[in-house]
Amino acid sequence: MKDDSQPADYRWVGKRLDRPDGADKVTGRARFGADIHLPGELVGKCLLSPHPHARILRIDTGKARALPGVKAVVTGADFPVLEDRPTPVADYAFNLWDQARTLMARDKVLFDGHPVAAVAATTEDVAQQALALIEVAYEILPHVTDLEAAMAPDAPLLHETMITTGVAPGPAAPSNIVARTMLERGNIDAGFEAADIVVEREFRSKPVHQGYIEPHACIASVAEDGRAELWTCTQGPWIDRAFCAGILGWEMSDLKVVATEIGGGFGGKLTVYDEPIALRLSQLTRKPVRMVMTRSEVLRRTGPTSGSLYRVRLGAKSDGTLVAADCEMILETGAFPGSPLGTARAIAFTHLDIPNLRLSSAEVVSNRPSVQAYRAPGGPITCYAQESVMDEMAEKLGISPFALIRKNAVREGTVSLAGFPLENLGLAQVLDAAEALEHLKTPLGPTQGRGIATSYWKNGGGQTSVSAILNEDGTVNVGIGTPDIGGLRASVSMMVAETMGVPYDKVTTTIADTSQLGFNSFTAGSRTAYAVGLAVVGASKDLIAQVCERAAKMWDLPPEAVDYADGMLRPAGPNAGAHDPVPLATIAAGFAKSGGPIMGKFTTDGPGAGPNFATHIADVEVDPETGGVTVLRYSIVVDVGRAIHPDYVEGQNQGGAAQGIGWALNEEYVYGADGRLQNTGFLDYRMPVAPDLPMIGCTLVEVPNPNHPFGVRGVGEVSIVPSVAAVANAVKDATGLRFFEIPMSPPRVLARIAGARAAKDPSLKPAFR
Amino acid sequence: MKDDSQPADYRWVGKRLDRPDGADKVTGRARFGADIHLPGELVGKCLLSPHPHARILRIDTGKARALPGVKAVVTGADFPVLEDRPTPVADYAFNLWDQARTLMARDKVLFDGHPVAAVAATTEDVAQQALALIEVAYEILPHVTDLEAAMAPDAPLLHETMITTGVAPGPAAPSNIVARTMLERGNIDAGFEAADIVVEREFRSKPVHQGYIEPHACIASVAEDGRAELWTCTQGPWIDRAFCAGILGWEMSDLKVVATEIGGGFGGKLTVYDEPIALRLSQLTRKPVRMVMTRSEVLRRTGPTSGSLYRVRLGAKSDGTLVAADCEMILETGAFPGSPLGTARAIAFTHLDIPNLRLSSAEVVSNRPSVQAYRAPGGPITCYAQESVMDEMAEKLGISPFALIRKNAVREGTVSLAGFPLENLGLAQVLDAAEALEHLKTPLGPTQGRGIATSYWKNGGGQTSVSAILNEDGTVNVGIGTPDIGGLRASVSMMVAETMGVPYDKVTTTIADTSQLGFNSFTAGSRTAYAVGLAVVGASKDLIAQVCERAAKMWDLPPEAVDYADGMLRPAGPNAGAHDPVPLATIAAGFAKSGGPIMGKFTTDGPGAGPNFATHIADVEVDPETGGVTVLRYSIVVDVGRAIHPDYVEGQNQGGAAQGIGWALNEEYVYGADGRLQNTGFLDYRMPVAPDLPMIGCTLVEVPNPNHPFGVRGVGEVSIVPSVAAVANAVKDATGLRFFEIPMSPPRVLARIAGARAAKDPSLKPAFR
Repeated sequence: MKDDSQPADYRWVGKRLDRPDGADKVTGRARFGADIHLPGELVGKCLLSPHPHARILRIDTGKARALPGVKAVVTGADFPVLEDRPTPVADYAFNLWDQARTLMARDKVLFDGHPVAAVAATTEDVAQQALALIEVAYEILPHVTDLEAAMAPDAPLLHETMITTGVAPGPAAPSNIVARTMLERGNIDAGFEAADIVVEREFRSKPVHQGYIEPHACIASVAEDGRAELWTCTQGPWIDRAFCAGILGWEMSDLKVVATEIGGGFGGKLTVYDEPIALRLSQLTRKPVRMVMTRSEVLRRTGPTSGSLYRVRLGAKSDGTLVAADCEMILETGAFPGSPLGTARAIAFTHLDIPNLRLSSAEVVSNRPSVQAYRAPGGPITCYAQESVMDEMAEKLGISPFALIRKNAVREGTVSLAGFPLENLGLAQVLDAAEALEHLKTPLGPTQGRGIATSYWKNGGGQTSVSAILNEDGTVNVGIGTPDIGGLRASVSMMVAETMGVPYDKVTTTIADTSQLGFNSFTAGSRTAYAVGLAVVGASKDLIAQVCERAAKMWDLPPEAVDYADGMLRPAGPNAGAHDPVPLATIAAGFAKSGGPIMGKFTTDGPGAGPNFATHIADVEVDPETGGVTVLRYSIVVDVGRAIHPDYVEGQNQGGAAQGIGWALNEEYVYGADGRLQNTGFLDYRMPVAPDLPMIGCTLVEVPNPNHPFGVRGVGEVSIVPSVAAVANAVKDATGLRFFEIPMSPPRVLARIAGARAAKDPSLKPAFR
Repeated sequence: MKDDSQPADYRWVGKRLDRPDGADKVTGRARFGADIHLPGELVGKCLLSPHPHARILRIDTGKARALPGVKAVVTGADFPVLEDRPTPVADYAFNLWDQARTLMARDKVLFDGHPVAAVAATTEDVAQQALALIEVAYEILPHVTDLEAAMAPDAPLLHETMITTGVAPGPAAPSNIVARTMLERGNIDAGFEAADIVVEREFRSKPVHQGYIEPHACIASVAEDGRAELWTCTQGPWIDRAFCAGILGWEMSDLKVVATEIGGGFGGKLTVYDEPIALRLSQLTRKPVRMVMTRSEVLRRTGPTSGSLYRVRLGAKSDGTLVAADCEMILETGAFPGSPLGTARAIAFTHLDIPNLRLSSAEVVSNRPSVQAYRAPGGPITCYAQESVMDEMAEKLGISPFALIRKNAVREGTVSLAGFPLENLGLAQVLDAAEALEHLKTPLGPTQGRGIATSYWKNGGGQTSVSAILNEDGTVNVGIGTPDIGGLRASVSMMVAETMGVPYDKVTTTIADTSQLGFNSFTAGSRTAYAVGLAVVGASKDLIAQVCERAAKMWDLPPEAVDYADGMLRPAGPNAGAHDPVPLATIAAGFAKSGGPIMGKFTTDGPGAGPNFATHIADVEVDPETGGVTVLRYSIVVDVGRAIHPDYVEGQNQGGAAQGIGWALNEEYVYGADGRLQNTGFLDYRMPVAPDLPMIGCTLVEVPNPNHPFGVRGVGEVSIVPSVAAVANAVKDATGLRFFEIPMSPPRVLARIAGARAAKDPSLKPAFR
């Protein structure tokens, strides 16, 4: 699979170079969303519903408007009524209608924290006082925050007229089930009939939040001519432009979106919340309006990922051949549709060659905030279910999980059930490297266990526009439109330096705003280093072609008679040696005499993203007294295609595993019987912090993606996919008990051990008896 | 001369459309230099020399550094020593050495207000206290602030080793004369021998300031990795980048310059003052440093234009044929070289066909701030001398000034003495329109007079880079790199709307920073609407070619088989009618399926700028009691090529005339015997305000420039060139006295009248006797 066309030794690519963003981020100089201030700015704040489900009978904003210092008050009525349909733009389908209602309720509030009004005032204090003066008359409705309860026939309905769509039979009457889908190949019943061993299990998971460090923050400024600027911490300024323009009914050329530095997104900053509100408030007041969420608002209003119920059945012959798999995925989507069914379905059992496979899914609304993308959306919970069952099957077969995968690994070139080709796979190399790890030889104690999980991620490409400029001193400026979350600026500069043969420190990559480049999809979907890399290599080649033309003009040769290599121009072929070589900097300095400035660009739809695989191995220790699970050791083996900057690539993988560990062990939303979120801060919503985690080992396996000039595959998402499953399998290995619900938090682990002890469950390991 | 290839009726070009910047500028929302703030910013302030000429013996910054709140103190020693040579970049030669010493003295201070140190502190108060604590030991040297005194053999020398350069014989010993040049054609002595009438005169003018409303303001932020951002009110962010990078020894890719809105520049914001200081202070403190000049600093430290001494001799045959002209121009350049000799020389007698012509020039330093460009640099004073002499010659010949020009007008295609071709001239059309003005028929009273002056300006083109983006809703974003001073964004949007056949309000033009586009020369030299217009039409055509390709792909036709007109795509030629026409917006929305985002660009060296002509006619009334001159009536006739947005074009011309009126009548620097500037504010430095001016009529003559798709010629500079001369000729007409020195301020006019009265000068008009 190794692509021999790739030179073995790059000058910059693959090196652990200085990170341009690093020091600024740790010293506080970097300007994040809340760091942008404009003269005359107002403070915008939202009034949040205290009820999980209620009809808005009346909103009286009179007293708030009368408060000195209050400049504007808006409610849902201040936003245009939109057609109820997604607006297909680029490769991203925008559900403007739903997002418009998520960010500001219209007729009903649908979750605790749902905004019902917003104010713009001269100070934060005045804004808070104004919120208290807004009188909202609610008709409180019965609510439902639980996935399974929401599916019950008598459940309170969030959207009274919503009829289930999709291929599988759904209820004909309105329900909370948005859609059902089913994909099938082979004959599922016949498959299971042919199986010698069947494992059938149900798995439950809770919504968890992306937990980015930086709360949402934006500042909007609408000029007197109606043209607007918006600074926001976002994963996709062009996406935000489309959302804001769509929700407000504006033209795109009238809105410039500037992405600030971003303190994490993980999919949660692919959409807009306060942004259209701030724009509307600024439009009304003709003042800049700044809106910064509190952590409580982030947790109450913004995107967790889906909670889920998976039902998985897996059948194998006694020789280990998998013959049938049936996976039903029921995903909780919060108040509005948008669960990651598509990506969940794309990975379930995809890397395995199972002749009879059925993937069915349902999406269910409940009185919780709308879910948003979260790193490998649907991946960790799908893999948790899949790899728990695979682990149990391997155990029943008496073979290692590696052996089970190897025996059933998908063949190169197969088309998956979800319909995409599986090509240029690095699965075998990942399994080889994982099985060779020293980690596997480390002995375990009596309360310790080891879990292994392997999964796949498809990765994205997508729409990308970039510029590359040759400055008059021979240095290079690169403009990209995708915010730098995980080291993109460094990686881009390295790829440009490598392509152009100029030193890394002579290339500066800047994140452009939406007025400066063509459309750019977001920094997400593991697409960014891949697709932006494709584009900047294209733009670099555009620059090279132009400098060759300039040299050719100087030498009176055709452009193709000029060679460019390592920053030097030389007459080529029959003219070789006819003129002394000229450095790039000379052409750069002479641009004014050779036809004008030298500027390159490139746009691409980013075809050919390479899928990849990761195996995670977790060692845990379970405390029999407290039920606490400690991760002792953690190893990742991942096929990254080519690691442009290995530090960042390892960081992505370590970060993904850390998030998965939190998800597996602690994180969950706690709603009271009143439907209100009880853990609205990081003291109660328990994410892993540094002392909770071991050093996470990361082995990068490089199987270059032949569709990328440097062989890059995405790395952001595959990093989290096997993590929950690896920890769950480790807890099983430690305790003898398989956990069918996450998080495996101390009370839940303790209760389960106590139950098994009381029931004298023979699978309970001796140390816990 | 009318170019028939230009369609007579444009949809947008030539209309008086809404100005996108207008309302924001008058309501205060526009963000000028001083409106940019960054978190943690420090205040930077310079310590200015109180002496016009002194050696710096010692600077002790210890006490200032010890003051709490002071974060850094710099002196000249904190900047790299540069080689003493201009750095030729693009079409602009940067004299880094001189500018580095202008903005911060090294060994000597050379003018009152010359900075000697700068501080960065937490507040303005602390910064001011710190300045007071800096101890500078000066050895005071004799000074010279007068042009003629500076040329005297025993004058104090500013640069002790400076030897005059140039072709004409200069002193072999060091002097204050920087350079002498001479251009000659024909035989000047023989020419004058052949003349029947000779007029010979000397003219003196004083340095005047550009008088922009907005003082210089910038904020610099250097990141931990050494990369820097600079916001500044500038006419040329790329030029500033080159200056700052050069002065600091940085690479260009490490510095991003963002042009803020700009409250006037007129040539005075083509260079840097506080910018490199702010960057250095930020580099040392790792905090943003903001520096905003006071008006006093602006007047003491920043660029006036040259004072001058002109000696002009003009010879004619009695039939009105001009046979010889000799023009010596001696320009005062302030402390460092940089006077506008080149442009002054380029226009002197250039529009006249004089067989024997000599243009000699000298540049002289003195203890005043270095001169900088000021609207048509050297133009108004050259024209003042030339048109005063032409006026006198016409009087002596008994013909009108129009007749004198017509008789001697340069022939189309002539190469000027300064070496550039005179093509596509609109002189005859301007004279026709001027002679037809009603203004000329208005009767004048006994203390009133009328002056006429005509001149020429070459106009510039120059390096330009732009982008054009087709947004997914069919709207267009245009990125340009030249700050909008006189309506550029509107004009650019109009040219793009016209080229692309989309509505004006669907095009937004944004000023890009230096990281986003290739090199851009400044907004100056009357180049901007011309060269940027060329470029944006090129970028629009790039977009059109791309949408034709997308449609061709959709229709399976070759790209050249698609027609684009008025925002619609149609199969062309033999395929006409084979498919329904498709609007641009459909192609825009479908970009993701047709190959990716659609982005255009264009770079050009801007060849083919068209020269132009203006005739100004001024009516004045001279108060015999006070010597005050009131401008009663003022008319401009100007060849603009094509007025893209007539309001802005008229505004340019009216503004130029207003500045020239101030220059002619009131503005001058008043230095005391101590060499210190005495009028450091707008109360004492008297610029015209609205009540000082009549409505200035403006007749736009459109003789399209065939080198521009819409026929544009520059308009910014020709506007001021004839103004001083027109007023001076009017004062002559009113009083009978020709003034050989400006400003013709009340005391000077009164003294001259009193002198003529005492001498019973017969030319003094009866009303003044």
